[in-house]
Amino acid sequence: MTIAVLYGGTRPNGNTETLTKKAIQGLDVEEIYLKDYLIKPIEDKRHAEEGFTKIDDDYNSIIDRILQHEILIFSTPIYWYTMSGTMKNFIDRWSQTLKDAQYPDFKNQMAQKKAYVIAVGGDNPYVKGLPLIQQFQHIFDFMGTNFEGYIIGEGNKPGEILQDTQALYAASKFQESIR
Amino acid sequence: MTIAVLYGGTRPNGNTETLTKKAIQGLDVEEIYLKDYLIKPIEDKRHAEEGFTKIDDDYNSIIDRILQHEILIFSTPIYWYTMSGTMKNFIDRWSQTLKDAQYPDFKNQMAQKKAYVIAVGGDNPYVKGLPLIQQFQHIFDFMGTNFEGYIIGEGNKPGEILQDTQALYAASKFQESIR
Amino acid sequence: MTIAVLYGGTRPNGNTETLTKKAIQGLDVEEIYLKDYLIKPIEDKRHAEEGFTKIDDDYNSIIDRILQHEILIFSTPIYWYTMSGTMKNFIDRWSQTLKDAQYPDFKNQMAQKKAYVIAVGGDNPYVKGLPLIQQFQHIFDFMGTNFEGYIIGEGNKPGEILQDTQALYAASKFQESIR
Amino acid sequence: MTIAVLYGGTRPNGNTETLTKKAIQGLDVEEIYLKDYLIKPIEDKRHAEEGFTKIDDDYNSIIDRILQHEILIFSTPIYWYTMSGTMKNFIDRWSQTLKDAQYPDFKNQMAQKKAYVIAVGGDNPYVKGLPLIQQFQHIFDFMGTNFEGYIIGEGNKPGEILQDTQALYAASKFQESIR
Repeated sequence: MTIAVLYGGTRPNGNTETLTKKAIQGLDVEEIYLKDYLIKPIEDKRHAEEGFTKIDDDYNSIIDRILQHEILIFSTPIYWYTMSGTMKNFIDRWSQTLKDAQYPDFKNQMAQKKAYVIAVGGDNPYVKGLPLIQQFQHIFDFMGTNFEGYIIGEGNKPGEILQDTQALYAASKFQESIR
Repeated sequence: MTIAVLYGGTRPNGNTETLTKKAIQGLDVEEIYLKDYLIKPIEDKRHAEEGFTKIDDDYNSIIDRILQHEILIFSTPIYWYTMSGTMKNFIDRWSQTLKDAQYPDFKNQMAQKKAYVIAVGGDNPYVKGLPLIQQFQHIFDFMGTNFEGYIIGEGNKPGEILQDTQALYAASKFQESIR
Repeated sequence: MTIAVLYGGTRPNGNTETLTKKAIQGLDVEEIYLKDYLIKPIEDKRHAEEGFTKIDDDYNSIIDRILQHEILIFSTPIYWYTMSGTMKNFIDRWSQTLKDAQYPDFKNQMAQKKAYVIAVGGDNPYVKGLPLIQQFQHIFDFMGTNFEGYIIGEGNKPGEILQDTQALYAASKFQESIR
Repeated sequence: MTIAVLYGGTRPNGNTETLTKKAIQGLDVEEIYLKDYLIKPIEDKRHAEEGFTKIDDDYNSIIDRILQHEILIFSTPIYWYTMSGTMKNFIDRWSQTLKDAQYPDFKNQMAQKKAYVIAVGGDNPYVKGLPLIQQFQHIFDFMGTNFEGYIIGEGNKPGEILQDTQALYAASKFQESIR
């Protein structure tokens, strides 16, 4: 089984990335840093007569890449108690792909994948990050994607995540379970 | 008391906008459609030595406008069970403003405001929209902003919100309470 | 369609009861005050070899009554941010009924019902009561029961609920929708 | 620092108890099995003129015992997505103690304690148990008690918790952190 990681963070070597690297160490992974791509916000045209306008950015190329993999890891820092705007814009665009004749099988393909969430925050993420987990559950339920598990970690300054031994343990367990 | 509305939606006359218009009818309101402005995603430099880079976009001008008002209404469609990426990018940038010497009093000023959330969704928003409300509570708690109330509405196709008499009633009550 | 109301409150004329009475005014309703019955806490024997012990209390008689109705209203004050212990003990016992040869069709029968929740609390119930709503969603999902809606109200001292015009409006809408 | 454990489970050697025993192994702990005591449901008389009626059961004796300790562990199986009715009845009675002249300092004393929650469930507790964690946060916030952490475990049949290596790891970390 191959894995795609979607990074939603916006600084290099952030805590979420560090934790994710621990989780995927030694695995066959395609890493996608969303911040390095141009992903325009959705313009909601689900009910417009003319339908969605074709958007000229990097979004589709990322969809093409993740559809190759069986496992998707959504790796996002907890910004303001939910996923980063960078990651949110990416997911918002799924509404367009669901109506895109170029991807007639999008939902079905997503329904065959397993998803994991890795999220690190600085302000009591073990409690205040829970609505984010619930939202991912709703997102995956909608797509039919199997939500296999999540890792919450605590950290603020870069490197602090290395103090969160429980998150690190969860990362190592993830790795074992995939191998 | 004057009011600023921040619209996070991305289609004209969407359900969330319609419901919000009912709520603010006849009130003195400054309306800000976030989709009409360039708001770049945050690049998290809270712990970078050099600090945040000055960003050349419309974000600060919107902050300047909302700081004039006592009441803020966050009006967002529920996209994928949380606020739109457009609105999220706006809120993510608060982390920069909190460190911006140009806004030394940002948190304090926000702490003196009252906030409302208006959110409309199509997939059981009365239950699946609840994590979003909890996140706004955390956001406002962090800033010290008074979270005065929220209205959830149900609607998918444009205009459907007009069937949600309970949401409309809540909108009319909001209006009365402000007058 | 006939209705059973399960009251979880423990004082006469409490706010939750008052709000519920508004909702059911003029409807054909069987009212059950759980506090007036002896309902022992479950003793979990789902995996005990001998199975559950027959319990000598009023629980089964209440199950018999609610199974007669198409609509169930769970009316509970929000004690400590969730349903009352009185109501919780009643629901806990469903685990026994699910294994009870006397009720071979319990889950199936519950799956054909519509459920509503009415909950009143004194400490910001519109936000702090949301986990309770999510739990009821999980409970009804498990049983296959259709969770049709909920009303949250705010009130502390008896009678205060009458100030919550939005909750009262929701109660009157419920009534209309059933008639 | 000494510890009191409140067990809310209703079967001997249940999964929650097993996990809790791992967490407290070798520590100085007073264990209280709520099911072994008579704890009547609260009768809400917060606003009754005559005030609360003195209740003749074991509740106060348990309060007396937990007030001796600095750390409280709430160990409850997840029944129907929240704490057991047995534990809920115990917590509901705090409303009475808060008004009880015999315990004038109850809230203050509770505010000086550290609390942990250990909860095991069989139906996707890592997601469906999250509202329970949020409720405990609200409960502890109200009392001023420091919510230090929680362990969620998965298990249905007795002994299954021993397969949940992540929960076991968290239990061992708890133990280390207290020592």
